[in-house]
Amino acid sequence: MQFHLNGYHSGDPSISDPADRCSPQGAEGPLPKEVDVLIVGAGPAGLNLAAQLAAFPEIKTCIIEKNSGRLLHGKADGIACRTVEMFNAFGFADRVVKEACGINEATFWKPDPSNPETVVRSSRVQDVEDGLSEFPHVIINQARVEDFLLDVMAGGPAKIKPYYLRRVLSVKHDPAARFGEHSVTVTVEHLDINRDLHGKAEVVKARYVVGCDGARSAVRESIGGKLHGDAANVAWGVMDVLAVTDFPDVRFKSVIQSAKDGTILLIPREGGYMFRLYTELATLQADERVADRNIKVKDIIAKAQQIFKPYKLDVKEVAWWSVYEIGQRVTDSFDDVPKDQRASRFPVVFTAGDACHTHSPKAGQGLNVTMQDTFNLGWKLAQVIRGRCAPHLLHTYSAERQPIAQEFIDMDREWAATIGSGKGADSDKTRDKFKSNLRYTAGVATHYTPSLLTGKTDHQNLAQGFVIGMRFHSAPVVRLCDALPMHLGHVHKADGRFRIYAFAGSGDPTAADSKIRALCNFLAQDQKSPVKKYTRKGEDIDSLIDVYGVFQQSHKDIAIEKMPELLLPRKGCYGLIDYEKMYCADLKSGQDIFTMRGIDRKSGCMVVVRPDQYIAQVLPLDAHAELAAYFDGFMQQ
Amino acid sequence: MQFHLNGYHSGDPSISDPADRCSPQGAEGPLPKEVDVLIVGAGPAGLNLAAQLAAFPEIKTCIIEKNSGRLLHGKADGIACRTVEMFNAFGFADRVVKEACGINEATFWKPDPSNPETVVRSSRVQDVEDGLSEFPHVIINQARVEDFLLDVMAGGPAKIKPYYLRRVLSVKHDPAARFGEHSVTVTVEHLDINRDLHGKAEVVKARYVVGCDGARSAVRESIGGKLHGDAANVAWGVMDVLAVTDFPDVRFKSVIQSAKDGTILLIPREGGYMFRLYTELATLQADERVADRNIKVKDIIAKAQQIFKPYKLDVKEVAWWSVYEIGQRVTDSFDDVPKDQRASRFPVVFTAGDACHTHSPKAGQGLNVTMQDTFNLGWKLAQVIRGRCAPHLLHTYSAERQPIAQEFIDMDREWAATIGSGKGADSDKTRDKFKSNLRYTAGVATHYTPSLLTGKTDHQNLAQGFVIGMRFHSAPVVRLCDALPMHLGHVHKADGRFRIYAFAGSGDPTAADSKIRALCNFLAQDQKSPVKKYTRKGEDIDSLIDVYGVFQQSHKDIAIEKMPELLLPRKGCYGLIDYEKMYCADLKSGQDIFTMRGIDRKSGCMVVVRPDQYIAQVLPLDAHAELAAYFDGFMQQ
Repeated sequence: MQFHLNGYHSGDPSISDPADRCSPQGAEGPLPKEVDVLIVGAGPAGLNLAAQLAAFPEIKTCIIEKNSGRLLHGKADGIACRTVEMFNAFGFADRVVKEACGINEATFWKPDPSNPETVVRSSRVQDVEDGLSEFPHVIINQARVEDFLLDVMAGGPAKIKPYYLRRVLSVKHDPAARFGEHSVTVTVEHLDINRDLHGKAEVVKARYVVGCDGARSAVRESIGGKLHGDAANVAWGVMDVLAVTDFPDVRFKSVIQSAKDGTILLIPREGGYMFRLYTELATLQADERVADRNIKVKDIIAKAQQIFKPYKLDVKEVAWWSVYEIGQRVTDSFDDVPKDQRASRFPVVFTAGDACHTHSPKAGQGLNVTMQDTFNLGWKLAQVIRGRCAPHLLHTYSAERQPIAQEFIDMDREWAATIGSGKGADSDKTRDKFKSNLRYTAGVATHYTPSLLTGKTDHQNLAQGFVIGMRFHSAPVVRLCDALPMHLGHVHKADGRFRIYAFAGSGDPTAADSKIRALCNFLAQDQKSPVKKYTRKGEDIDSLIDVYGVFQQSHKDIAIEKMPELLLPRKGCYGLIDYEKMYCADLKSGQDIFTMRGIDRKSGCMVVVRPDQYIAQVLPLDAHAELAAYFDGFMQQ
Repeated sequence: MQFHLNGYHSGDPSISDPADRCSPQGAEGPLPKEVDVLIVGAGPAGLNLAAQLAAFPEIKTCIIEKNSGRLLHGKADGIACRTVEMFNAFGFADRVVKEACGINEATFWKPDPSNPETVVRSSRVQDVEDGLSEFPHVIINQARVEDFLLDVMAGGPAKIKPYYLRRVLSVKHDPAARFGEHSVTVTVEHLDINRDLHGKAEVVKARYVVGCDGARSAVRESIGGKLHGDAANVAWGVMDVLAVTDFPDVRFKSVIQSAKDGTILLIPREGGYMFRLYTELATLQADERVADRNIKVKDIIAKAQQIFKPYKLDVKEVAWWSVYEIGQRVTDSFDDVPKDQRASRFPVVFTAGDACHTHSPKAGQGLNVTMQDTFNLGWKLAQVIRGRCAPHLLHTYSAERQPIAQEFIDMDREWAATIGSGKGADSDKTRDKFKSNLRYTAGVATHYTPSLLTGKTDHQNLAQGFVIGMRFHSAPVVRLCDALPMHLGHVHKADGRFRIYAFAGSGDPTAADSKIRALCNFLAQDQKSPVKKYTRKGEDIDSLIDVYGVFQQSHKDIAIEKMPELLLPRKGCYGLIDYEKMYCADLKSGQDIFTMRGIDRKSGCMVVVRPDQYIAQVLPLDAHAELAAYFDGFMQQ
């Protein structure tokens, strides 16, 4: 898609008139007095959490935001492959990919040896290695990602819209309250000067509060959280421009390191015309703030023109710009329970995103790590509130996400140092660092360590390509019922359900003695089965744990009608058959999931996947007791 | 996507609450008194035309419809590959494919030789041959297709919405008027009993009227058109059901031919649960109408259950049903100019879709042929109204589309006879007929004969896979500016522009003597160049004829900065560079467009594509004069 040719306009570019591109999305009226979850901040972290909670109509969620409406421009723009995978579970990956700018290669520029005042291309690197994800690395304005999340929220069963112009004054947790009560009292100020409510305080009582309110988080402060990390000592300018240049790589991600004037990171942007320039401006003194320098956009442009030589940069419009000095910082805990109290208390106040970890923008990670935070927290909160999981599950949020944030921040710090001019520009070192970071920047390196949610590696050999603790890496399959070629991982929706993928071993899966049949019978009928134990009366059989069969044979060689009932479940008010539980290897394309993911063809295996798409367990098909024990560790009847 | 589990609901299934799924789309207020185009009927033909005209803000289009709002259920559901290609030009192919049910195989069932009262599977056939189109054959409710077209109309520069509850009383053309005047007077009755306008006649004066008003078209009658063809003598029932069955192929398209009870055509539907059954009911007497039989839905169900044996069919909900006897009929001309007056008059009243050709629903062609009618007409009307093409171009609409309709109707008639029980059920013959029809049913067999729009085959050997007169068959490429793998045909938008794809021969395309450079220089500078001649002052250089370069080399081996200016055009108010005019063969995937489409690697060639995606010309790169002559045949300054 091409747009922004005649100037930047926010909103849906498929609508011709810019005036029609943004529809109002805010909730009307006063805040509810009592909610299950109060989300503070309608940025990517908060909206992603609200989108997850919108799947549950029985959960009362309220999200507040101090700004007056949707974001219009600027801020983050890089969407990692892993994030697009998550968007696919929310149902809008296609909208993002269609509208975004795909990043396919990165180019690196260095001082021209024969004329060091100018730069020359030094090398190219493929941006996403083959097979890393079925989705691309893309660039799109954060505002559009937020729009898509707002659509999921409003369209979901719980129909959630943000309350804008609300600022948190205080967050107070009653330590005497019993767990599960509305024990957190949040006082909120209404900022809209045009309404009766202006200046009046509203009080909301919440069972849980999640602070997605940015680096100056009031929620974090209320629980005594402090960001630790490096002081920022280099000022960078960032601007989204519509400009004419003869720089040939303006549609590639490019790192341009000049001899003396510092570095530019160029990011091509959605719509085909705009691009973003991160421009290194100045080294700050230890106690100096960038605001003191009074840097103007013309200063950033002038600096960029200097670094760009011999190429010209004729800026026609600046859609957005900013100067920043954000360092890499993280809090010790992402919830309100000190380490020494974890055995005796459950968390009720959480932080996510910039509220507990801040990144430099140049690695393009802040937005992505942030949304993975609340994708991790969302299903846990939902299933505890719904009484399906035990409250100690909530401890796993900080335990899982804090080390990940730390890991990304360490990477980010190294990258920021590499591309800055402090250590001298070395284009090849920059390229090598870029390459070694690629799995991190794609978001697929996250690896949770063994815990009550993540199993041990005893049976990892049964499916070497489905790494326990890492995200479920999708692969092509053919749907048995209708021969549709598709991606197995795309059956996974952001609906709070666990998935069990039962990969059948060799032999006829319909045989009376097949292990798949035995597993299905166990799950459907045995008193110890987690499906039987935790699915409530009146619910569809797949409403909490969703079971799939995957077969080695062609769809033509399997008689669907002979399959176990669990794989042809009767659902809904009419008891209709759900035909979409069985898949076959895609033999025609040559992309056989059993080969691609190293599945033991003889014995098969089962892969248990968490609601946030991370692999919980790889087990033998007949490990019924181990499977039951896993779910018994955190589920409740 | 799965939906309709708890009953059929119309509208956008991504929205959880059925009450929120359909938004009002109608225009308010009285009809405009004077318009360029009045479209009668907001079905697929009318909406497709309006969607095309919505791209032109300077054209005043009005569309009226006798129904009270959007379609809710039923009617056509099969979307051919070719139609999805067209939807891609409108920008919503992705929405259709995501929501629809993909048809991958068809299965054929015959009487069981050992028990002829029951049926057994006889064979399977792949539904779309490999490489036929980059898009699938899908099934989705016509209502959703109409929703997507309504979105294009409302979001386009001309912002068009239908006026509902309007019935045409008369259409009168003033033969004394000069061509181009508002010479057609249409009198319209307002049917809304709740409004002041009820019963009052509104008069609209139009330059052109297009009757998309169905088989009983008032517009057709006003120009004396008559449907000729077969009397319908077999009654069929059609129903969309939510049902439980043990029939194993319920998610495949299936033709079930029983020994004595007739035939069922089963079509799986979007959402994973619903399916459609076309059920043969009875042979009618010569003068008998199906309405006389007073057939009820329970009769159709009973008949279907009979044909389905030994399988059970337990219908839980009928979302929509109908009984029909529509035969295959077509009018002699699709406009108001009798053959003998073509030299002296230009057409101003047209018909499209069911108004001029009616199909049996079983070949799934009506909707598809219908929309191709108005995709053919839309750009012609637009460019004549805009003064960019000469009015004699309008004669080509009926000349091109009437024979195509006749061709489809002949195929349809044979197919209807094959699957009906009249000649005795022969499952293998049915399968063979199905297979031989597949290119027609995919919509890619349409082949326009030489005319002022379609060139001769003198140079067809330069690109054997781009058949002159047939639709441009897309193939993969890599975009030069950013290494994005994509489909070349997807640069084609439904915007009324012609495309010239210049496939470079061997050698460096940036060389001073390259034929690509010479062609670009001709097009950009020569007085005889159609680009130079017909593009108006102040318009972007690609606004009427859009030129692309396609190269054999890898994107890494081409210096984009050395390319001719025409392929890096400066556009819009800022003179920004459009980088999306150049493509390379996708060497990495092994899908080399030069090989796939049989392009002469030594000499290259140019392929001229009409605004409706049909190939107009294949010419040598240096055939500048022939290229100019082609456009001079129908364009005007």
